Amino acid sequence: MTRYERLAQGMAAEIRSGNLKPGSRMPSLRQIIAQHGVSQSTAARAYYLLEQWGLVRAEERSGYFVAPLAKAAHGDSANASETAIVDISELVFSVLDAAKRPGIVPLGSAFPSPLLFPMARLAKSLGQAARSVSPWSTVVDLPPGNESLRRQIALRYMRMGISQPAEEIVVTNGALEALNLCLMAVTQPGDVVAVESPGFYAALQAIERLGLRAVEIPVDGASGLDLDALAHALERHPIRACWFMTNFQNPTGVTLCAAKKQALVELLARHDVPLIEDDVYGELHYAPNYSPPALAFDRHGLVMHCGSFSKTLAPGYRVGWASAGRFAARVQRLKLMTTLSASIPVQAGIADYLEHGGYERHLKKIRLAMQAQRDAMLGAIARWLPEGTRHTNPQGGYFLWLTFPARIDAMALHRLAIERGISVAPGPLFSATHGFENCIRLNYGHPWSARIDDAIRTLAELLAHPEVRARD
Amino acid sequence: MTRYERLAQGMAAEIRSGNLKPGSRMPSLRQIIAQHGVSQSTAARAYYLLEQWGLVRAEERSGYFVAPLAKAAHGDSANASETAIVDISELVFSVLDAAKRPGIVPLGSAFPSPLLFPMARLAKSLGQAARSVSPWSTVVDLPPGNESLRRQIALRYMRMGISQPAEEIVVTNGALEALNLCLMAVTQPGDVVAVESPGFYAALQAIERLGLRAVEIPVDGASGLDLDALAHALERHPIRACWFMTNFQNPTGVTLCAAKKQALVELLARHDVPLIEDDVYGELHYAPNYSPPALAFDRHGLVMHCGSFSKTLAPGYRVGWASAGRFAARVQRLKLMTTLSASIPVQAGIADYLEHGGYERHLKKIRLAMQAQRDAMLGAIARWLPEGTRHTNPQGGYFLWLTFPARIDAMALHRLAIERGISVAPGPLFSATHGFENCIRLNYGHPWSARIDDAIRTLAELLAHPEVRARD
Repeated sequence: MTRYERLAQGMAAEIRSGNLKPGSRMPSLRQIIAQHGVSQSTAARAYYLLEQWGLVRAEERSGYFVAPLAKAAHGDSANASETAIVDISELVFSVLDAAKRPGIVPLGSAFPSPLLFPMARLAKSLGQAARSVSPWSTVVDLPPGNESLRRQIALRYMRMGISQPAEEIVVTNGALEALNLCLMAVTQPGDVVAVESPGFYAALQAIERLGLRAVEIPVDGASGLDLDALAHALERHPIRACWFMTNFQNPTGVTLCAAKKQALVELLARHDVPLIEDDVYGELHYAPNYSPPALAFDRHGLVMHCGSFSKTLAPGYRVGWASAGRFAARVQRLKLMTTLSASIPVQAGIADYLEHGGYERHLKKIRLAMQAQRDAMLGAIARWLPEGTRHTNPQGGYFLWLTFPARIDAMALHRLAIERGISVAPGPLFSATHGFENCIRLNYGHPWSARIDDAIRTLAELLAHPEVRARD
Repeated sequence: MTRYERLAQGMAAEIRSGNLKPGSRMPSLRQIIAQHGVSQSTAARAYYLLEQWGLVRAEERSGYFVAPLAKAAHGDSANASETAIVDISELVFSVLDAAKRPGIVPLGSAFPSPLLFPMARLAKSLGQAARSVSPWSTVVDLPPGNESLRRQIALRYMRMGISQPAEEIVVTNGALEALNLCLMAVTQPGDVVAVESPGFYAALQAIERLGLRAVEIPVDGASGLDLDALAHALERHPIRACWFMTNFQNPTGVTLCAAKKQALVELLARHDVPLIEDDVYGELHYAPNYSPPALAFDRHGLVMHCGSFSKTLAPGYRVGWASAGRFAARVQRLKLMTTLSASIPVQAGIADYLEHGGYERHLKKIRLAMQAQRDAMLGAIARWLPEGTRHTNPQGGYFLWLTFPARIDAMALHRLAIERGISVAPGPLFSATHGFENCIRLNYGHPWSARIDDAIRTLAELLAHPEVRARD
């Protein structure tokens, strides 16, 4: 650690401990220099860091003040140490690694069963497309991407009642790249980004990697994102972008109703803040009250809608897209600069399947399968887990969120479950500021079996294990 | 612009104009506050920016000093305005766009002719692999990637006499992603990175995007990178990484001999600086004196070797890799966090081709083709271009670099050539600090034809155009 980092850490500890109260005046640079025997550049850089961490605020002509700390229920990971996010990354990788073990019951996996997808039909489309694609497509299909594929994606939007010009669609290596490019397109290092809590860990990782700061907005297990908390955060923080999942959110499975989606879009439009809408589960809806994504309500090109075929059709093909509205050109350029283009034959193969493969038929089938698996999972939860265990009730996708009645240590549960051949996704994966120690995410994206039922029973047993029962 | 940005810009102008001399003391924060009527936080932030720009240096306990400016032949884009790099990006995109026009003579293209590749045989491998790949590979083949492909890549290294464990190889979406991930793995915003001048524009773009600073090291048209200049730069700047092409460099086509590669690796090892070795043209060698990449001389895991099948086998498939030595695990995690994985069936398809498709036979054929095209291009240059035009003499790859005898405006040449159906890559694309106004890069990666010969003659005519002749 450099001298100014040490100095900043020391002052940060004073602020966090409450010795320096929110709103109070910080020592001036001259006082710091005198007190700590440091140079003026060291003092200035320490204050710069404290500003970056969101712990102090500079006020024109009057010096530095302790920032009003977020003491509300929703945390502000601007105040969490970077270490927390790095720890989450470690955790994510260990959970992902565990999910790769052969024979494990993948309740903690982020992926649905590959057996639910038309892999043979897809392979046929891919082989055909690879044979017939023009060699010159390697130049022509650079971003925004294969024209026929973008037209097919525009047709999908049309089915949802959304008129989305194919020209604004940029094909990417899966939705993860689309989301990352959108975030890069609208932020600079130091900017504040609103994310969900609990929320998708990749958002926290991206924010850390790009030198951004996260403000976590709570997600309610029934109605989804807390719009009041978001409105409040928009007043308090210079939020530059939001990264939200409006349909079948990861990890909770909850959805914003149409009215809330509209209210969200209007709220953000008033603040001129772009919404990065992660909608990779949207097509996996199986309830009549499904509503189109927030994009449908966008009138200002502020919604950057990110989709993918990885969860609905072609896992592992790595084809996603961003419909980035007024930021489309910027996203396209970032794509060119970072990974050049998505695989050309694969783009053509997916386009061929969408045109000739029977996508709607497949979607109907997979939605029914997911719904049946959800019902089986809810049955097992009722059967085995202790009374008072709360769960979300997803109307699409393949994740649900459990909150246990007694205090437990979800990390210990994860560790012991792995030893018994079961993976779960522990709550702490999904926030940099909240433990969610009492929560886990369950994946029901796999055909139901006695093994899965047994696994839920085993989890129930583990809840009584001394290492899992949290001490008060 | 904020107040502190304006203040920093003003001081930057004073430094660049020479009113504030390198090494001289800058005004103290208190003086700035008094002189400009700004707050202490504004003054501190302005100095922070000036440090970021490399224009001032803070010295412990004694204040800020004007940084010693690079006045040597090799520039320091830390001192170039960001605008220069953004301008280059615009230029790159316009050149790429122009190369996409149907019917253009693609002398400015970055790609070889797709007709030189075994597209039909590849499509067969891809179709077969897609049909036979296990559905579970979508989980198992997450980074580092398809095992069979990584084994095949390790075998390619073995042919070069390099023992490279398959475990250290991370499969990426083409070499461009590999290079970007390696750069992210070893740098933090504000760090200094050494690049070649002239050099690959994607390096400059990546450096700008990640908030890094570039130091440009000159490349000699005969012997390649100037190692003395690099040694000097390593003394003067806190260089955190180098991004160099050691074989058939883009844009010059020049190669470091084995002795220079070894010296480069040893020099960087003494400074403990990682080398990101961009080696996408290495397999396209057609002279007896070919030497393996710098990686062959690495004893400390400091060389991050990036390769690709895009230039040698499968343009548009977007499969590359990084052998990142001691940074392999970090690169693998960054890959997971940014784009998750390369396309699974495509990885399997390339692996199938490498095993059964006759890659060595294809390489022999394409090397002979490139060599013949180079000779034809050198013939056309001798035939049409004015006496005194200097050119490099590449022993591999498909780029050469022209320096015209009279002063010209390469940008105007590019513009006028496009109007005549010819693209060229103007010199200014390849540096943020040097114009290279007198230079262009020529692509000879396309089967020779009378059209190309005519295009060279047209370029010769355009050199006499009043808009191209630079005024002194």
